Amino acid sequence: MPKYFYYNRPFGLDGGGELPSLTIAYDTWGTLNAAKDNAVWVCHALTANSDVADWWPHTVERGRFLDPEKYFVVCANTIASCYGSTGPLSVNPSTGEPWYDTFPCVTIRDIVRAHQLLAAHLGINHVRFVIGSSFGGFQCMEWTLIDPDFAEKAVFIATSADCRPWTAAFNESQRMAIEADATFDRRDSDAGAAGLAVARSIALLSYRGGIAYNLTQAETPEEAEPLFKRRVHSYQRYQGEKLRRRFNAYSYYRLSQAVDTHNIGRGRGGIEAALRLIRAKTLVVAITSDIIFPPADHKPLVEYIPSVEYHLIDSNFGHDGFLVEYEKLDAIISNFVNQ
Amino acid sequence: MPKYFYYNRPFGLDGGGELPSLTIAYDTWGTLNAAKDNAVWVCHALTANSDVADWWPHTVERGRFLDPEKYFVVCANTIASCYGSTGPLSVNPSTGEPWYDTFPCVTIRDIVRAHQLLAAHLGINHVRFVIGSSFGGFQCMEWTLIDPDFAEKAVFIATSADCRPWTAAFNESQRMAIEADATFDRRDSDAGAAGLAVARSIALLSYRGGIAYNLTQAETPEEAEPLFKRRVHSYQRYQGEKLRRRFNAYSYYRLSQAVDTHNIGRGRGGIEAALRLIRAKTLVVAITSDIIFPPADHKPLVEYIPSVEYHLIDSNFGHDGFLVEYEKLDAIISNFVNQ
Repeated sequence: MPKYFYYNRPFGLDGGGELPSLTIAYDTWGTLNAAKDNAVWVCHALTANSDVADWWPHTVERGRFLDPEKYFVVCANTIASCYGSTGPLSVNPSTGEPWYDTFPCVTIRDIVRAHQLLAAHLGINHVRFVIGSSFGGFQCMEWTLIDPDFAEKAVFIATSADCRPWTAAFNESQRMAIEADATFDRRDSDAGAAGLAVARSIALLSYRGGIAYNLTQAETPEEAEPLFKRRVHSYQRYQGEKLRRRFNAYSYYRLSQAVDTHNIGRGRGGIEAALRLIRAKTLVVAITSDIIFPPADHKPLVEYIPSVEYHLIDSNFGHDGFLVEYEKLDAIISNFVNQ
Repeated sequence: MPKYFYYNRPFGLDGGGELPSLTIAYDTWGTLNAAKDNAVWVCHALTANSDVADWWPHTVERGRFLDPEKYFVVCANTIASCYGSTGPLSVNPSTGEPWYDTFPCVTIRDIVRAHQLLAAHLGINHVRFVIGSSFGGFQCMEWTLIDPDFAEKAVFIATSADCRPWTAAFNESQRMAIEADATFDRRDSDAGAAGLAVARSIALLSYRGGIAYNLTQAETPEEAEPLFKRRVHSYQRYQGEKLRRRFNAYSYYRLSQAVDTHNIGRGRGGIEAALRLIRAKTLVVAITSDIIFPPADHKPLVEYIPSVEYHLIDSNFGHDGFLVEYEKLDAIISNFVNQ
């Protein structure tokens, strides 16, 4: 079970409007030392939660880059999600009813600013490093700019300085799928569940990509028998069903909108100017077969961040490589954070 | 308006069962000469129709590779489609009602065998060349194997010897989107229309790919203003709406299933053995940025087809490059067919 931090004041939002109060669900590992200088902050990806040890196995372990004997590791659930932090399934205090579709649109900056309140509450002004991949990388990047003194180091994995049009196109198709499920207009927690399953199956096409699919989902000669049944058909449905059971369509919709707003150059004179402002020593890691955050999208990070180290992991698992290739990742990140 | 060929006998299907009769809609350009040896057969892609001059501009023109002054060009609508040939919106003679979801599953081989009946009806035993891209390429490839004497030459553009797992995954997600639209169980011609729009927006992600999206859908600085509105959002919805207006969800569902069955090696001892049986002089064309039929998928064709010429078109338009790069394509194909 996560711990909860309650913030009982209005929280203004990037796109206008406010949330009347905030709840932030978070998990920690290890102990914050007396000097309060051994914290590490993990920013989670789109449908994950604050339990890093669960969704990112082999990381929060002795000797790994999130070593709980060395660090005080914190991960907080993002607002708009459905794992304990304020989101569409939370009760709107002004109506006494769940927000559902009336939950406001939030940005990556809103998500980070909400977590800044938790950091202050925990007495953490400074962390050894922030780390995140994908949507988690978006948050880390924003955090290094919103508070340039917060992170001594930053690790950006399989991510980008802005949400590219193709990514936004994938997200829009997913939102269209949720909307096409007529139950999405119902004010209940199961609304849009069939659409959510479709959305997940679409997302997966981008997370794994052709190389991984064709390697792992090819039929054996025996399986090739039934004409209209492919092995990968069951895989798509199974993955859709899995998310449907553990997530919520309203949260998914708002989080995917937050992704589409990501642009660290907004209000900072563009991406190049923003990247040049990053003071944290930065590690950038890309994955060769990642089609949604391809190595090419990491180029501006490597080119403009003043102190940067770049690694390209050779993997066939696409964007999901950041979860699968934990050994390669651990070697690179441990080396960087221990420097 | 297409012409119609009526075949009033049962037509047995690859997966079992039969259609009680067939209607084939087709278009022709030019004149079949007395020797009946100047025909050219075009196989159309997934959602296209028999009017090649409409969906493949700059091809059915004097001096182009489908020169109507030289050739008798034929293109027939595939069965299961909704542009005149027998499909889910046709009336099932045994019930007097439209087929809708009871229309049987068909394969690429069924589609080709139906068109063979039309060829026989037109008195065409032999064509100068068959040509098709994508799903059209699937049909051309099957035709060269079902009747090895039919085509003197064959042109396979942006296609593959079997439907790869990633492609089948894209298709399954699209069928899931159609199913998630609760109107899909209604027995009317508009059933599943919202789901169909989603399906198209998913398909487009694969037809264009990241390079084309990021080149053509990036915001100008002025457009970047509204936080939650991206240019590409409208593009996805517009493309979905366009297909929704001109196509049918039942047809789309059955055609995408036909795609997933494609494997020229089935019953022929595998893909390599099948490709070695192709007697037509073959031209294979791939597009550099095509992610759904990537150049690598053309390798077996080039390796095993006995007489083969290969060209790779450098283009940023992905799979859609076969429509966009008509000048490059015309130069390559004209040269090949005139040899």
